[in-house]
Amino acid sequence: MKPLRVTIWNEYLADRTKRTRAGKLYPGGMHEHLKQALAAPDLDIRTAWLGKDINHGLSDRVLKETDVLLWWGHGAHGMVRDKVADRVVARVHEGMGFIPLHSSHMAKPFRRLMGTPCTLRWRENDDKCVLWNVNPNHPITQGVPLHFALEKEEMYGERFDIPQPDELIFLSWFEGGNVFRGGCTFTRGAGRIFYFHPGHETHPSFHDENVLRVIGNAIRWAAPPEPRDFMPNAVMKPIIEK
Amino acid sequence: MKPLRVTIWNEYLADRTKRTRAGKLYPGGMHEHLKQALAAPDLDIRTAWLGKDINHGLSDRVLKETDVLLWWGHGAHGMVRDKVADRVVARVHEGMGFIPLHSSHMAKPFRRLMGTPCTLRWRENDDKCVLWNVNPNHPITQGVPLHFALEKEEMYGERFDIPQPDELIFLSWFEGGNVFRGGCTFTRGAGRIFYFHPGHETHPSFHDENVLRVIGNAIRWAAPPEPRDFMPNAVMKPIIEK
Amino acid sequence: MKPLRVTIWNEYLADRTKRTRAGKLYPGGMHEHLKQALAAPDLDIRTAWLGKDINHGLSDRVLKETDVLLWWGHGAHGMVRDKVADRVVARVHEGMGFIPLHSSHMAKPFRRLMGTPCTLRWRENDDKCVLWNVNPNHPITQGVPLHFALEKEEMYGERFDIPQPDELIFLSWFEGGNVFRGGCTFTRGAGRIFYFHPGHETHPSFHDENVLRVIGNAIRWAAPPEPRDFMPNAVMKPIIEK
Amino acid sequence: MKPLRVTIWNEYLADRTKRTRAGKLYPGGMHEHLKQALAAPDLDIRTAWLGKDINHGLSDRVLKETDVLLWWGHGAHGMVRDKVADRVVARVHEGMGFIPLHSSHMAKPFRRLMGTPCTLRWRENDDKCVLWNVNPNHPITQGVPLHFALEKEEMYGERFDIPQPDELIFLSWFEGGNVFRGGCTFTRGAGRIFYFHPGHETHPSFHDENVLRVIGNAIRWAAPPEPRDFMPNAVMKPIIEK
Repeated sequence: MKPLRVTIWNEYLADRTKRTRAGKLYPGGMHEHLKQALAAPDLDIRTAWLGKDINHGLSDRVLKETDVLLWWGHGAHGMVRDKVADRVVARVHEGMGFIPLHSSHMAKPFRRLMGTPCTLRWRENDDKCVLWNVNPNHPITQGVPLHFALEKEEMYGERFDIPQPDELIFLSWFEGGNVFRGGCTFTRGAGRIFYFHPGHETHPSFHDENVLRVIGNAIRWAAPPEPRDFMPNAVMKPIIEK
Repeated sequence: MKPLRVTIWNEYLADRTKRTRAGKLYPGGMHEHLKQALAAPDLDIRTAWLGKDINHGLSDRVLKETDVLLWWGHGAHGMVRDKVADRVVARVHEGMGFIPLHSSHMAKPFRRLMGTPCTLRWRENDDKCVLWNVNPNHPITQGVPLHFALEKEEMYGERFDIPQPDELIFLSWFEGGNVFRGGCTFTRGAGRIFYFHPGHETHPSFHDENVLRVIGNAIRWAAPPEPRDFMPNAVMKPIIEK
Repeated sequence: MKPLRVTIWNEYLADRTKRTRAGKLYPGGMHEHLKQALAAPDLDIRTAWLGKDINHGLSDRVLKETDVLLWWGHGAHGMVRDKVADRVVARVHEGMGFIPLHSSHMAKPFRRLMGTPCTLRWRENDDKCVLWNVNPNHPITQGVPLHFALEKEEMYGERFDIPQPDELIFLSWFEGGNVFRGGCTFTRGAGRIFYFHPGHETHPSFHDENVLRVIGNAIRWAAPPEPRDFMPNAVMKPIIEK
Repeated sequence: MKPLRVTIWNEYLADRTKRTRAGKLYPGGMHEHLKQALAAPDLDIRTAWLGKDINHGLSDRVLKETDVLLWWGHGAHGMVRDKVADRVVARVHEGMGFIPLHSSHMAKPFRRLMGTPCTLRWRENDDKCVLWNVNPNHPITQGVPLHFALEKEEMYGERFDIPQPDELIFLSWFEGGNVFRGGCTFTRGAGRIFYFHPGHETHPSFHDENVLRVIGNAIRWAAPPEPRDFMPNAVMKPIIEK
């Protein structure tokens, strides 16, 4: 069985130097950290980032060779070229899995796939966060307990302005009184999408074993099961004759 | 009670002259026909069309004063300015109801609200069409029988590449062997959307009393129940103190 | 316009005497309290309770004359006769609205309408509870703020073993670290259902203005818009002849 | 990897003798036919039927040892003992996959899992049937074309009185003018359910390669991915201390 081809995309700004808290938590960048943390025989992982090249490392060819794309962006959504964002959307429609993490709820490809503002309430206040697994028989939650905690995370709270998810997977509780639909699946075209909220750059969430297990499960779940024809607008002759 | 402010938007190309079949069926244009056919004391209806002005008749002000927007476009989706399409999308997010008709499944505002290709199979072959009411206790189907027929319609068939609808209202049967999820609701931001497939310009579907009843019901259903705050991305203080 | 015929059903055990906390909070019983608190010109409210008569006050005739049924039960679900539970289910299928409150998540009619265990995690520990309105453009949340708090409520938490709701209306936050899908809509047959979690008998939740507004809105939302034929299994002749 | 343990349950009345059309199409019964037609190295298939023993062949032990249960019943739903129906429902809640076929839309376990009447319109008139695959990237439709036809099937048509499915997989077209949501998934407790409409006893639908592929795919999809704890109503201590 061929390994799944995974591309991890990172904005790679806050974590670029070792002087920031993000840089200390994720030396080499979050993409490099996740690549190592998710390494497995069935995954063939590459990375890309905003400043890699004129395509942010996401040329047509890279995307054609990607089964599942992870995306982490925060402060520089506006710097992502429209052309690249549209290319990602088109590949999702063709069947590429897409896993936007944390603040990527405002990333161009995610918002274009949702068709809603994707806004939410937020707070950087080191809230304790408890994630509740509300879909315990879903492939994404295999091996994940009924609940697990992150000692500190950025608060992301309702109302989260998304379309009704296909499936609700995680609900998050925050110390300061907020709740959040923090793990949701969507289908767009032939592509599967999983949004997952942990991963603020100043917190060690991508070192947490449950967070990593969820992302790893989501990669396998989002991978297209086989090559499928994308169906364009097309004329069709009658099946039944008059 | 104030009447609902309805704007009917029409591409107004095929039906512009009396020499075409569309022009004969809808003298003055489909928008004018629908305005008269839907007239009621609780509705304040205006019209707009592609060539009306540089905004296609949909200035910021018109949209701010519109509770529900109907949209009919077919051959000239590409001529709708991106700026106007984005303005419509933004107003739907704020709560304006939106009712794309027939070939508007490929209209810019609808596709941007869906986040999918919205493609389908189609055929201009005068297929008989039977519409099945699969949601008989929905406000949109009040007074509508379990099924009704249109003697001739353009075939629109699966696979229709939309996100899973909030509610499936009508399923259509076509003589040539096709089926179609031809009446679907969606919520995007604070706005309600109802897509409805009848209305090919060379067929008299907008003269059919059941089609008109459905559209009339949908207008009342899609109208925002009251002014509501649109919720932007916003910082939020803790509700519960540490 | 004829008033909606509402029946409020209460187990009426814990609140039967003035010596209990429940009895002190709700003299005459919760049903009597809710009847007065929800009184409005467009509602014609009657009450019924477990010990009222052999049908628990819910004869065929009472149910036929009920547009929306509220249900509060807690410790005596097993005492409700199967025949009465089935009668309630049948009326919901015919279009009667149904609003199970608080511990009625385990009531016979609700469980039979859901087809799942409807189990959850719970705790009587006077947790503070914050309810989040995640569906701000829904009729049930008209006039309800983005969030509101109950100083003390019984904790009801995930995983709540229900089918995926048609719509998620409220998510609840609890002081002790739990979250709950505490306000959900479902459709079963022609009937609309709204489950809402506040209302522990030892807390004054049914004195809270937001809780009462939600219940009042839900009654109007759940009311059948018109008499509708219930559709039995039936033979059907071809619409299209071979 | 251990094979999936599949039990095929058949009413086994119409197909019991070789004198009936059903008996000629399915010598030994539909269960025996399906057992052979679905045989594969990863499946360990056993059969059971109404008259097998006092439990209709579905003892506690058999169900505990079943990962996925197929069910075919038609004329004798009322003869299935309530106790056995409840046992099937309880096992689905624990995670057993359940695949009701054809007229099993009225079988006791299916109706109890749905909570609705599950009624529909029907006609025995040898209608040609076209099945449309509306979810082409779903595991159940792997290897299944966009559409395929059955020359003759019993017409099953809308309105089908089920709760909104989790996913719509197939829509069926019938020669006589009807449509049907003929392939639908549901989740109930930890169990996955797939209803699929072909399989009238006087038609050779279970000889059709596409029908068999769909059922085979559905078995693998419905199988529980691992043993999971079923979560009862339970008291829970605070995670966060006051």
